[in-house]
Amino acid sequence: MNRSTYAIGVDFGTESGRALLVDLADGREIATAVHAYANGVIDEHLPGTNIRLEPDWALQDPNDYLEVFKHAIPAVLQESRVDPADIIGLGVDFTSCTMLPTKADGTPLCFLPEWRNHPHAWVKLWKHHAAQDEANKINAIARERGDTFLDRYGGKISSEWFFPKVWQILDEAPEVYAAADRMLEATDWVVWQLAGVERRNECTAGYKAIWSKRDGFPPDEFFAALDPSMEHVVDEKMSRTLYPLGSKAGGLTEEAARWTGLPAGTPVAVANVDAHVAVPAATVLEEGRMVIIMGTSNCHMLMSAEEREVPGVCGVVRDGIVPGFLGYEAGQAAVGDSFAWFVEQCVPAAYTREAEAQGLNVHQFLEQQAAQQKPGESGLLALDWWNGNRTILVDADLTGVLIGATLATKPEEIYRAMIESTAYGTRIIVDNFERNGIPVREIVTTGGLPERNKLLMQIYADVTGLPIRRTATSQGGAFGAAMHGAVAAGKVAGGYDSIFDATRQMASLHEEAFYPIPENRQIYDRLYQDYVTLHDYFGRGANDVMKRLKRLREESLAHPERANRQDAKDAKKDG
Amino acid sequence: MNRSTYAIGVDFGTESGRALLVDLADGREIATAVHAYANGVIDEHLPGTNIRLEPDWALQDPNDYLEVFKHAIPAVLQESRVDPADIIGLGVDFTSCTMLPTKADGTPLCFLPEWRNHPHAWVKLWKHHAAQDEANKINAIARERGDTFLDRYGGKISSEWFFPKVWQILDEAPEVYAAADRMLEATDWVVWQLAGVERRNECTAGYKAIWSKRDGFPPDEFFAALDPSMEHVVDEKMSRTLYPLGSKAGGLTEEAARWTGLPAGTPVAVANVDAHVAVPAATVLEEGRMVIIMGTSNCHMLMSAEEREVPGVCGVVRDGIVPGFLGYEAGQAAVGDSFAWFVEQCVPAAYTREAEAQGLNVHQFLEQQAAQQKPGESGLLALDWWNGNRTILVDADLTGVLIGATLATKPEEIYRAMIESTAYGTRIIVDNFERNGIPVREIVTTGGLPERNKLLMQIYADVTGLPIRRTATSQGGAFGAAMHGAVAAGKVAGGYDSIFDATRQMASLHEEAFYPIPENRQIYDRLYQDYVTLHDYFGRGANDVMKRLKRLREESLAHPERANRQDAKDAKKDG
Repeated sequence: MNRSTYAIGVDFGTESGRALLVDLADGREIATAVHAYANGVIDEHLPGTNIRLEPDWALQDPNDYLEVFKHAIPAVLQESRVDPADIIGLGVDFTSCTMLPTKADGTPLCFLPEWRNHPHAWVKLWKHHAAQDEANKINAIARERGDTFLDRYGGKISSEWFFPKVWQILDEAPEVYAAADRMLEATDWVVWQLAGVERRNECTAGYKAIWSKRDGFPPDEFFAALDPSMEHVVDEKMSRTLYPLGSKAGGLTEEAARWTGLPAGTPVAVANVDAHVAVPAATVLEEGRMVIIMGTSNCHMLMSAEEREVPGVCGVVRDGIVPGFLGYEAGQAAVGDSFAWFVEQCVPAAYTREAEAQGLNVHQFLEQQAAQQKPGESGLLALDWWNGNRTILVDADLTGVLIGATLATKPEEIYRAMIESTAYGTRIIVDNFERNGIPVREIVTTGGLPERNKLLMQIYADVTGLPIRRTATSQGGAFGAAMHGAVAAGKVAGGYDSIFDATRQMASLHEEAFYPIPENRQIYDRLYQDYVTLHDYFGRGANDVMKRLKRLREESLAHPERANRQDAKDAKKDG
Repeated sequence: MNRSTYAIGVDFGTESGRALLVDLADGREIATAVHAYANGVIDEHLPGTNIRLEPDWALQDPNDYLEVFKHAIPAVLQESRVDPADIIGLGVDFTSCTMLPTKADGTPLCFLPEWRNHPHAWVKLWKHHAAQDEANKINAIARERGDTFLDRYGGKISSEWFFPKVWQILDEAPEVYAAADRMLEATDWVVWQLAGVERRNECTAGYKAIWSKRDGFPPDEFFAALDPSMEHVVDEKMSRTLYPLGSKAGGLTEEAARWTGLPAGTPVAVANVDAHVAVPAATVLEEGRMVIIMGTSNCHMLMSAEEREVPGVCGVVRDGIVPGFLGYEAGQAAVGDSFAWFVEQCVPAAYTREAEAQGLNVHQFLEQQAAQQKPGESGLLALDWWNGNRTILVDADLTGVLIGATLATKPEEIYRAMIESTAYGTRIIVDNFERNGIPVREIVTTGGLPERNKLLMQIYADVTGLPIRRTATSQGGAFGAAMHGAVAAGKVAGGYDSIFDATRQMASLHEEAFYPIPENRQIYDRLYQDYVTLHDYFGRGANDVMKRLKRLREESLAHPERANRQDAKDAKKDG
């Protein structure tokens, strides 16, 4: 390359979007800008109305995505002072499955006055959990019919995925379903808005919409079995034409050029997903190296040349991460989230004060205290199921456990036990892959947690027995999206012809590595045996106490009219 | 009675002693005074030295007990303005087993300069837990020899009891053992100081020193099997003559009269124990009514006319509570203690602030919040083993468990779950008595907790399905001690001839009663089934994870030289 060339990656998170401008020669990060969604996560009222959402709902406003293009891209251009003409490609990544209904031209139903007050017309965010009934029925019907696609998804379709969400719309708002010409992933929708063409990506189709390169979507009879109105959902509202990751969706439209300040025609990559773009951003292009995106939850990405059935994985998709490999996704539903819960709900005032006095946040203070302890010293063991278990049990009704508390137990010990429990959860996932013929010899992490918490990194190394490194970039999503933008542009335009080339030139790891410490490993091996025993006892049906407790909780919440009788008695007495 | 007569009860607690002056006609509490022990619980250094105590040690200074007589009794005399001549009896109650070595004249070894710097010369407080090895050996040897006395103590002698503490002295300080002419309970020692005569009570002998009315102490061969030097411990350092509760030990000596301001010769009752005196103070003189002394721990007292074998009880002693009945003692090791732990270690700053803003302490605020919840609503279930399990598993190595935590779990929900868990623990004890032929049809509580926490009372009623009332007196110990003082004096002196008469005239219950609410009971029945399943799973050997965790913790603490390697690595890197 003679002149310097650049690409922009736009990462759509849960609360905000981020643009990152990257130098294609070496992956240097030139400028970044974040734009918060004005309407954020919509889980109480529809914006501008007093229409209340039911529990478990989580919506978004598609206009917030467009605002990210209009603010964050101009911001990185201004900050970097790079000539827009030198920005030769644009890629996006998104949370998934985050989906919406639109008209044939891509206009979201919720933009139209006649649908604006209808909750089902808005974007259903990945963590919209109100389609659990539909997911349960999909799983039951698929099992009953003997459909084999469940095998690719650990035996279960999640309520977070595409068809449960589509079916919920049909179930609860057939008029919205009928009015929707298109149903699609938000990641495909934003690419459509940039490039002016609907070009759906293979990745979300494979991981979230039960599609595979070999078998396509489930047959129409399957959908008819769900609901006769859904028989032709794929042909009516989706598409059987899907585009591989890294391919070009089209060039930037005149309108999108005005939004962003980039030249019209700038190549836009086919849409991608946050966890998946992070894999090449983590230098991983081969078997044996697991990428863990660590944040509120853990997402484990791994590849193999040959297809294996691995129980409990979230999904396996050919070319789903990088071409030529089966891409496997596994996950832990609460990691950073559960640490945040602990800091929010369980840390006493004295600790908050002491942290402040030392100029630390509470996480840092607890990490510092917990780092003084040796493995096994606390006498505690936890099951990391504060938000259910994703892999390998695929059971949202499982809940968190703490064992070993005494009058001498300290907050930092519980904090450490919770970190350790997520490490055991990861080791179960690693062991599960290995047992099924997919080896893991190294872990590469990316995300906020690995940067902030070295104790956590050391514990993961000690518990898994694997060396752990982390990405040089702290923005694995946006960085990976930019790489895909460069691939969409191609070498001839100053980009790269493949994600392999882009990765080798642009991606790198942080120098610091964490290696298992043999003495710690020995202790954690013993604790892990107990973790596995409890995991199986509570998670595999020997004692379904967690499900009974959840049911009791639901019954209790379903009868708010059953007043607290003690209060009633007291009131009577006082009156 | 023509003139008004009074008695004083002196209750020796863990941190302080309390005197209570009671009108014998009706039990009216005239005056009370508390005197804190100057040396409190001695668990770090011997007073006035830098001699460090090992973990699990807990000593006291016998002079602190004398100071209670010298300050608290004059204080109630002064406050009440009662003529000391109208105080016709004096009783004491004490924590137990709290014991000490003395010379033949009752002088504590620790009062003597040559022994003052020797930890084993001081009082071993009930919660001195450093004699676990001796307790384990006593149990093993008794089982091996086929001694049947273990059956009266739930199959196990506790490390808190008399002979493990005596044996620890011999093991670790044979010179102290040799110098000790007498070994006795502190409650007998203070009576000796008041009345000038060594008159040991049957109650502590029965509950803490393996004595029974029928069989006496274990045979000398048993003690010889522990250690040949201990063969004659009973005859050399104790006494086979024991006095029933309520009998008169003697009259106040001239010296004690000077200390207290009471007339010399005032009848002093044979010593008693805090939990045991609380039973008549709670109006209980019969079968079927369980008294629970609720405080840092729960102590369950129950009587039956016939002797039954009840697994896991702390002890069964004929006439051990009131004459004519077998007295059973059972217990839960951590109740108020575990709530205090929670408030100290797990309640966030926002709650502390909000409690303060509302003018409540944190317990009150949490109770108020928790009272808003319905049974089952939290989705939580706990095992109340923060300090092991006393009855019915008798296993100090069991630890606390919390199941059902999610990202939505609130502190007040955990607080309520911990209260509920102690109620399940009580129900297991109740069920265990009933299963073994000792019915329970009502619970009477006494102590600090029942007064402060109505939610707890209602939960106990709902969980056990039994009506619950509480004593009118908030000082069940001192009140019961005063009643025994009145009995020691006898009717002729203006007191009572039996504890039955004293109870009927003096003791009463608070008007407010708590009855099981049928809907709550139904839900708690379901939760209790799960509690029992987990109790048995973790407590009866199906999964000994708690013991493994404890062992790992002990190993870890036993190797402080094994530095935290991460620190070492960091230091090397920084250096």
